[in-house]
Amino acid sequence: MSRYWSEMVRQLEPYVPGEQPQIDGLIKLNTNESPFPPSPTITALLNEELVERLRLYPDPESRRLKHTIAGYYSVNPEQVFVGNGSDEVLALLFMAFFKQDKPLLFPDITYSFYKVYCQLFGITAQTIPLRDDFSLNLDDYPPENGGIIFPNPNAPTAIGKPLAEIEALLERNRDSVVVVDEAYIDFGGETAISLVNRYPNLLVVQTLSKSRALAGLRLGFAVGAAELIHGLDRVKNSFNSYPIDRIAETAAIAAFDDEAYFVACCDKVIATREWTRQQLQALGFSVLPSQANFLFARPPVDAAALMAQLRENRILVRHFTASRIRDYLRITIGTDAQMETFISVLQQLLKK
Amino acid sequence: MSRYWSEMVRQLEPYVPGEQPQIDGLIKLNTNESPFPPSPTITALLNEELVERLRLYPDPESRRLKHTIAGYYSVNPEQVFVGNGSDEVLALLFMAFFKQDKPLLFPDITYSFYKVYCQLFGITAQTIPLRDDFSLNLDDYPPENGGIIFPNPNAPTAIGKPLAEIEALLERNRDSVVVVDEAYIDFGGETAISLVNRYPNLLVVQTLSKSRALAGLRLGFAVGAAELIHGLDRVKNSFNSYPIDRIAETAAIAAFDDEAYFVACCDKVIATREWTRQQLQALGFSVLPSQANFLFARPPVDAAALMAQLRENRILVRHFTASRIRDYLRITIGTDAQMETFISVLQQLLKK
Repeated sequence: MSRYWSEMVRQLEPYVPGEQPQIDGLIKLNTNESPFPPSPTITALLNEELVERLRLYPDPESRRLKHTIAGYYSVNPEQVFVGNGSDEVLALLFMAFFKQDKPLLFPDITYSFYKVYCQLFGITAQTIPLRDDFSLNLDDYPPENGGIIFPNPNAPTAIGKPLAEIEALLERNRDSVVVVDEAYIDFGGETAISLVNRYPNLLVVQTLSKSRALAGLRLGFAVGAAELIHGLDRVKNSFNSYPIDRIAETAAIAAFDDEAYFVACCDKVIATREWTRQQLQALGFSVLPSQANFLFARPPVDAAALMAQLRENRILVRHFTASRIRDYLRITIGTDAQMETFISVLQQLLKK
Repeated sequence: MSRYWSEMVRQLEPYVPGEQPQIDGLIKLNTNESPFPPSPTITALLNEELVERLRLYPDPESRRLKHTIAGYYSVNPEQVFVGNGSDEVLALLFMAFFKQDKPLLFPDITYSFYKVYCQLFGITAQTIPLRDDFSLNLDDYPPENGGIIFPNPNAPTAIGKPLAEIEALLERNRDSVVVVDEAYIDFGGETAISLVNRYPNLLVVQTLSKSRALAGLRLGFAVGAAELIHGLDRVKNSFNSYPIDRIAETAAIAAFDDEAYFVACCDKVIATREWTRQQLQALGFSVLPSQANFLFARPPVDAAALMAQLRENRILVRHFTASRIRDYLRITIGTDAQMETFISVLQQLLKK
């Protein structure tokens, strides 16, 4: 604490990201990264000519990347916003849309950054409890609100929502912005981007950190009505004019262009996830249904203790201390070989 | 304007960056970029192994880069903060330190993003006029303030301040944070980083966009007392945990490691700047003293009209419409060949 900090800084409880230990040889199943590298087409693009052009500012509007994303999802480039990771996109949209008299609504168990943004920007929030089975029921969201945000699939539960239920929410909630945070949508969910032309208050956020294996390059985007994107642009251009660097833009475009590789990686993760689910269930875990690249599972023993034992075996998984979910572990899907090692270590640990 | 925007978004007047036209063959003297590419050591580092590791999140604390910067300036890594361009560093520090009951002070003619941050974060500001010769006199800054920020050298005037005058300000202004924005310090100025261990309220901001030729990669940093850096970290970790991507961190470290190349580029810019000054003066321009990689000069004809004529000749310079400076042009220093073309085009235009 310093006397030079503003009052707001004193009050903050910052987000705590998953551990990123600088140790080689770990099986890292704690931060939902891709087990596969990004599109192999990227390396050849990082050549001397691109490096020489780093002396010049990037396009502040990232028009080439917006054009690529717009083409991929059959929307107009004016309906696309890009940011330095989807966390930056979320931060900017909280500023742009959720500072309202009525409270912002989001689930009690969800991405923990949402409540941090509310603190940072002085946004009033109201959490809506998930049902006992950890399902998100959109009927529970009252019409009097200053905005609604939820991940689909939800984090860390991994449970997805059918598109029809999201559309039903949009039908009855037309006066505030609804944000669907689709960080994990490519692993079996159905994107709400198909709805943006019918609902001017819908914003869909995605990331290249998971299914496109570019967590290390920091790219996220939002798709919605041009008026919402224009509002986001006003905030972005009052914060940081050039959030997307030249290399990030180039690699992101390559990742979208390499559709066959993308589909193959997603399919592989889904197949390995279902194998892992069966193995965990055979070991006595209770596993929530997953449309994500991770499983949320209750082990037959104490979750925190099991996480510590796994760590001793150089396997990282994530545990949250919130009371409703402290009996669970969040397990990222790795390669087949990693998951086989993980299951065999679990078999050893649970035998004792 | 959309009914979904929050009130704050409606009020914003976003920053307008210099034009980044996607046209080849322009002589681009409008955004203070380096005329030279970044360190040639960077290309070899962007190899397949680095691309494969892009699947993993970067270190959220950018410890390797902080260590490099700390070593370069003989401070501790805990005294270094890094961000996605110095604009992001500035945005975060406005949030962290300048939201106070008393007004933030900065010059009337200065980097125009400062007043945009004040709007975005609801910070009260008071501008202090530069003297008639456009010099910044720190005696004009009253002791009752919620913070002070100024660039050294100032932008767009290019005029630098001696370190002794900055220290004298710090001696009498101990109750609020003083930020020296040193985007252009490497072209003849003297950094205030040498003062951070004596003044716990001093924060020095620099960028890799100018002297290190990495505008296209978005890297800026701040150096100050560990308590100030800790406050910045709290805001950053409530906004975006991972602002520095893996490639940006790698290239930034290489840029700091290649000291000989850095010094040679800065020396070349300074020599070309002084040649350009003489040429402009011979053409009847009034040129302010410059410690930056640009000149701020009053042409013997209408400045806006001359800018337009230069543009017809595929040369971009920057013109600001603020009343005190609308008779001036800001001219980035390019290569010798670019500046020779610029001067010869000016000779043609001014003959008419």
